[in-house]
Amino acid sequence: MNNRVDSEFGMYKIEQSFEVRYHYPVHFVDGLLKPNQSLLAETFRSENSGERPKVMVVMDQGVVDAHPTLLDDFLAYHKIWADDFSLAGNPVVVPGGEQVKRDSTWVTHLIEQMDREKVDRHSYVCAIGGGAVIDMAGYAASITHRGIRIVRIPTTVLAQNDAAVGVKNGVNAYGKKNFLGTFAIPHAVINDASFLSTLDDRDWRSGIAEAVKVALIRDGEFFRELEELAPLLAQRDTEAMQRLIIRCAELHLRHIATSGDPFETGSARPLDFGHWSAHKLEQLSSFHIRHGEAVASGIALDVIYSRMIGRIDRSLEERVLHLFRNCGFELWYNEMAPTGDSWPLFEGISEFREHLGGALTLTLLDAEGTGVEVHSVDESVYREATAFLKTWVNDHVPA
Amino acid sequence: MNNRVDSEFGMYKIEQSFEVRYHYPVHFVDGLLKPNQSLLAETFRSENSGERPKVMVVMDQGVVDAHPTLLDDFLAYHKIWADDFSLAGNPVVVPGGEQVKRDSTWVTHLIEQMDREKVDRHSYVCAIGGGAVIDMAGYAASITHRGIRIVRIPTTVLAQNDAAVGVKNGVNAYGKKNFLGTFAIPHAVINDASFLSTLDDRDWRSGIAEAVKVALIRDGEFFRELEELAPLLAQRDTEAMQRLIIRCAELHLRHIATSGDPFETGSARPLDFGHWSAHKLEQLSSFHIRHGEAVASGIALDVIYSRMIGRIDRSLEERVLHLFRNCGFELWYNEMAPTGDSWPLFEGISEFREHLGGALTLTLLDAEGTGVEVHSVDESVYREATAFLKTWVNDHVPA
Repeated sequence: MNNRVDSEFGMYKIEQSFEVRYHYPVHFVDGLLKPNQSLLAETFRSENSGERPKVMVVMDQGVVDAHPTLLDDFLAYHKIWADDFSLAGNPVVVPGGEQVKRDSTWVTHLIEQMDREKVDRHSYVCAIGGGAVIDMAGYAASITHRGIRIVRIPTTVLAQNDAAVGVKNGVNAYGKKNFLGTFAIPHAVINDASFLSTLDDRDWRSGIAEAVKVALIRDGEFFRELEELAPLLAQRDTEAMQRLIIRCAELHLRHIATSGDPFETGSARPLDFGHWSAHKLEQLSSFHIRHGEAVASGIALDVIYSRMIGRIDRSLEERVLHLFRNCGFELWYNEMAPTGDSWPLFEGISEFREHLGGALTLTLLDAEGTGVEVHSVDESVYREATAFLKTWVNDHVPA
Repeated sequence: MNNRVDSEFGMYKIEQSFEVRYHYPVHFVDGLLKPNQSLLAETFRSENSGERPKVMVVMDQGVVDAHPTLLDDFLAYHKIWADDFSLAGNPVVVPGGEQVKRDSTWVTHLIEQMDREKVDRHSYVCAIGGGAVIDMAGYAASITHRGIRIVRIPTTVLAQNDAAVGVKNGVNAYGKKNFLGTFAIPHAVINDASFLSTLDDRDWRSGIAEAVKVALIRDGEFFRELEELAPLLAQRDTEAMQRLIIRCAELHLRHIATSGDPFETGSARPLDFGHWSAHKLEQLSSFHIRHGEAVASGIALDVIYSRMIGRIDRSLEERVLHLFRNCGFELWYNEMAPTGDSWPLFEGISEFREHLGGALTLTLLDAEGTGVEVHSVDESVYREATAFLKTWVNDHVPA
């Protein structure tokens, strides 16, 4: 704190300044709710003996459907470890996917239970589900009593390697994705591999796109590893996927820790590579195209554009497109095409600019493992890139 | 980031860890909206030339009533400094006082305007008003786009020396004060002395209690200074009040910066000295007793209790009670009295314990300038302390 008299006003100014250290563990386990696994109980356990924190559990309906014993498993686990935590009411089961972020009654529903069960700042919300459920529950927790601690147990590839390891939450409002939300550090993240086996093929695949993204802009070695893993990933090899998830989560966490801007006060969003068109494509398809599928298409488009403006050569472009195809991504959707002069997809650029706060900063590809920021793009070249992608996909029908 | 294989699970763990440095200026000025005062425009001015951030202005109806030219002054100021910022819609005038925190439609109203005016993360909300308006507007800003920057212009003594210089916001819900809220750093706080002259006597006085509080537990020299200033404060001397506000804000800011727990993850709330009964007293009076008035009574009670259990001597007790009386505080309200076996005021202890998360940590007085934390209290002694306060106030009718 540095106090000084401000000469211009003849009055006083205090410069408030302080530092906060944030830390949280991200665990990778298999079979979190097995009776003898103490990790979850330890995560809730209070440092003050005799205190039993309250835990309010939120579960994704989709996960409960795929794992019909989940609710019973949780209650059985709690019985064994009841000395460490109590339950704040019954676990709440909420719809999975984007709808839980669109319908504001779910946030209210969770907050009402927190009020009823007298959840306090030493309690926990424990969210088990896909990225949308974790986003919604995290938002509800973050605004109650100025922040109830959240333990995230993400159940999809996308959530385990990307969304749920970071520091954001949010829900949609006024037709805008994540219009309401906060930056909030989780108390802990526990990635349980046992949830991945029941994912449908599209959800299994979806998380791969974010790994390709972060490898391309940050880690050439990881990109080459993904090229090797691709056939195994396509065959749903668990070990290959675990390798992908851990490395992708690590790069994501490192970005947050070392970017100097964990709460995104500046304009740069390097991890949004491929995302300007992805967000728009999801919306144009009324969210029938999933986030990871749209991100793969968005990356493909930005990679082709990067090649067309001379930043990378054709061989890297080919490798990226083949990697996606080898993992089973469609890459081309008719919603991407211009319709004459009008081109709905390209409106994603101005929406992305607005999201950043007026000044455009876009990540393109400069080399294998190296992204580069640009501040303007050429629509006509993007039109060519889109046409190229369509042709390329037509010419490369999977065997 | 420290990665290791967790031997117990045979799997992997990443320890995410990073530091964030927060800083914001707290200005003390006189006549912020004078045409030639550049401070406010500079506060909004973008570092990127050519960009004009949007500013959404929120004003307290009570302040507008007391300063009928405020709206025009702001618009005139904007005309002069229009190169530095644009207005995101018309300034929004909202009710002042607790009602604006109780009625959730006001938060929605502000968020709707932010949506309509495409306020983004490079924009500002500028809130001019008492603590309640600043709390409500700060909450609305903090959850929109994961945090719109807020510039706080508090207009009461209480807000200038306490509430508005800190890192909290909030609104009431489910009958609970600040049930919804976040910790959010302001972009800047600007305390303008010109707003203080129109405060009614009760609002002028209210902020004094927080200064006495922080002086008693943190700064004996400031306490002695307040004893000297008391007659001037009672006569509404502007310079004396400015001295009080700056020193109190300074101590408050220093606590946040150096406590090691700016976002209150632990159980200790040293600055809540006198507040367990104050919150309850406000509520028992249906908020007819103002926060600062209730805090003065709460401090008086805790000071008497501290003397009764032998922590301080009678002379310090007398000095505190006289200081409050010399500033014009009532100190005794019938809502404080037990009614037979039942004692509504004392329920404030269990509500405070619940607010802290189950374990009670209360600050008492150990010496002039020194607080002390205790973890249990004796109701029968508090009953005696309450009876003592009532008698003392009866015996010391102001001249």
